[in-house]
Amino acid sequence: MESRQAFYAAADIGGTTVKLGLFDPEGSPLEKWEIKTDLGEAGRNILPDICRNLELKAPGKLLGVGMGVPGPVSEAGVVQQCVNLGWSRPLDLHEEVRKLLPGVPLLAFGNDATTAAAGELWKGAGKQFGSAYLITLGTGVGGGYAEKGNVVCGARGAAGEIGHITINVKETVSCSCGRKGCLEQYASANGMVRLAKNLLELKEGIRSENSLHIESLFPIGIPDGPTGLDGRDSFDAKVICDLAREGNPFCLYVTELLGNCLGLAMSYISCSIDPEVFLIGGGLSRAGEVLLEAVRSGFRRYAFSVCVDTPVIVAALGNDAGLYGCVRMLLDAAEERNDS
Amino acid sequence: MESRQAFYAAADIGGTTVKLGLFDPEGSPLEKWEIKTDLGEAGRNILPDICRNLELKAPGKLLGVGMGVPGPVSEAGVVQQCVNLGWSRPLDLHEEVRKLLPGVPLLAFGNDATTAAAGELWKGAGKQFGSAYLITLGTGVGGGYAEKGNVVCGARGAAGEIGHITINVKETVSCSCGRKGCLEQYASANGMVRLAKNLLELKEGIRSENSLHIESLFPIGIPDGPTGLDGRDSFDAKVICDLAREGNPFCLYVTELLGNCLGLAMSYISCSIDPEVFLIGGGLSRAGEVLLEAVRSGFRRYAFSVCVDTPVIVAALGNDAGLYGCVRMLLDAAEERNDS
Repeated sequence: MESRQAFYAAADIGGTTVKLGLFDPEGSPLEKWEIKTDLGEAGRNILPDICRNLELKAPGKLLGVGMGVPGPVSEAGVVQQCVNLGWSRPLDLHEEVRKLLPGVPLLAFGNDATTAAAGELWKGAGKQFGSAYLITLGTGVGGGYAEKGNVVCGARGAAGEIGHITINVKETVSCSCGRKGCLEQYASANGMVRLAKNLLELKEGIRSENSLHIESLFPIGIPDGPTGLDGRDSFDAKVICDLAREGNPFCLYVTELLGNCLGLAMSYISCSIDPEVFLIGGGLSRAGEVLLEAVRSGFRRYAFSVCVDTPVIVAALGNDAGLYGCVRMLLDAAEERNDS
Repeated sequence: MESRQAFYAAADIGGTTVKLGLFDPEGSPLEKWEIKTDLGEAGRNILPDICRNLELKAPGKLLGVGMGVPGPVSEAGVVQQCVNLGWSRPLDLHEEVRKLLPGVPLLAFGNDATTAAAGELWKGAGKQFGSAYLITLGTGVGGGYAEKGNVVCGARGAAGEIGHITINVKETVSCSCGRKGCLEQYASANGMVRLAKNLLELKEGIRSENSLHIESLFPIGIPDGPTGLDGRDSFDAKVICDLAREGNPFCLYVTELLGNCLGLAMSYISCSIDPEVFLIGGGLSRAGEVLLEAVRSGFRRYAFSVCVDTPVIVAALGNDAGLYGCVRMLLDAAEERNDS
């Protein structure tokens, strides 16, 4: 490190680790590392840990610090709650970090999926587009929307909370958010397993208490033949995706239903805001084309005519997207400051 | 008119009339008038008529001209099609109007509902908010989204096309857009009549070909007692709203179902983009609180937790909203030009 150099720093805060990155003033990455997320004492050590760590790495040389957190962040930088970090009350991130890093000129905050969308739009799969809606399919379903030069948080930080779009008003099982029938209950890794188990039950003529009532959403036509899942005590989404890729008709059908659920929700996003491209990230996106094709086909089924050809592609930056997005927010803030 | 004064002009183009307005350079309205929309010759006289009319009103003194059209307009000012105006092919509005008004420095174009949203956010019911999603309930359902300083068209001009959000995948009757189960089929004035007729049939145990299958969307519980509609050959949405306001249980129930449909769609918008306020306009909004309460209650039923208290209020500017929005777009464009 040159002694006179100045840096941007980024922190992508997750429930297990915090990803950290140091960037040069043009936004090129210099170094990346991780620290453990300290969930003790209701998460009150998390921000001090990060700030101490960043300050140690580049003492007195930080031009700006950007952070992504796993919860709804308002444009003013207030997070209402962050269950995964133990933050149960509203927290003014700007105020907290300002106290911890009084000498840093620029601060920026965003929801982790929103910053990831900004990162993908800047340096990843969204590079050639003017706006991108990122959807992450993992344990849950997350989302974030970014336009060139404009990271969209929403008035209450809820822009991108598409995992909690109600797609099945007849659902009887509760989602983690407390309501029923959320997209996340069908289009996540857990949701995919649930879809498969439910279809296996329907195939056997069993109707359990935890039935999805997916048949109230789509007409069901389970293909004949071996499911590839019979006799397994348990299976995860990867097993289903692998079997689907091998051409197993039952697992292809599970994938198709997941694509219908997600495509339906994406058609809502298109009618609401009409992003130029959809980017699919998260663990499930590793299933590749078999999943993407199911999603594209589901989307085309429900999309408004002028939107049917909206590209649906895989996100490119993986776990680094959020760090890039934080730096992009800082660069935007710096430009804005220079303008005024 | 002072001889040295300069003006902004706005045109809100509808299928029957074009509303025109002249504004001073600060955006205050000076004069409003209307001309007939000439639908002959595939609508090719519409833009020349408007430009001639505006140029005559303030020869050589137009600082800028803004227009709202009833179709999806991209950020570049291209409209894909405008069925109501007879425009069946993509039209580059910028290029066309540039040719017709070569001396006017600023041009701006937008979808009519989007410009109306911008107008309400600037001078109407959205004045105190940073972003507003306007929903117009008329013959159909339209929508537009605007942030302060940013009229959001969407990549293909489809931001705000919420009338075509699929809320009922089991619908058997086609919407005007060609697909089935669109919000517009339930939450418009026509949709309200359809809901009522369908519930009257269900009440009598009749199942017709045109059934809504609304019971696949919500559990149905038709209240006992006189509907107020029995024996009428036909009725319109106003009759239903009037009876609902008088406390008729059946018509209140129709209103409640419409509120469920619209509230569900609004919960999708909240999860997608999280506007600070929802504004309800269009003819149906004249039903007032009885409708608004049904919509708020439907929205709260499905909204993501941090969004449940999003205000839902009536739009204020009526037919003038679009004109104000056009001028707001011109003022934003002028500011941007001065900045760079």
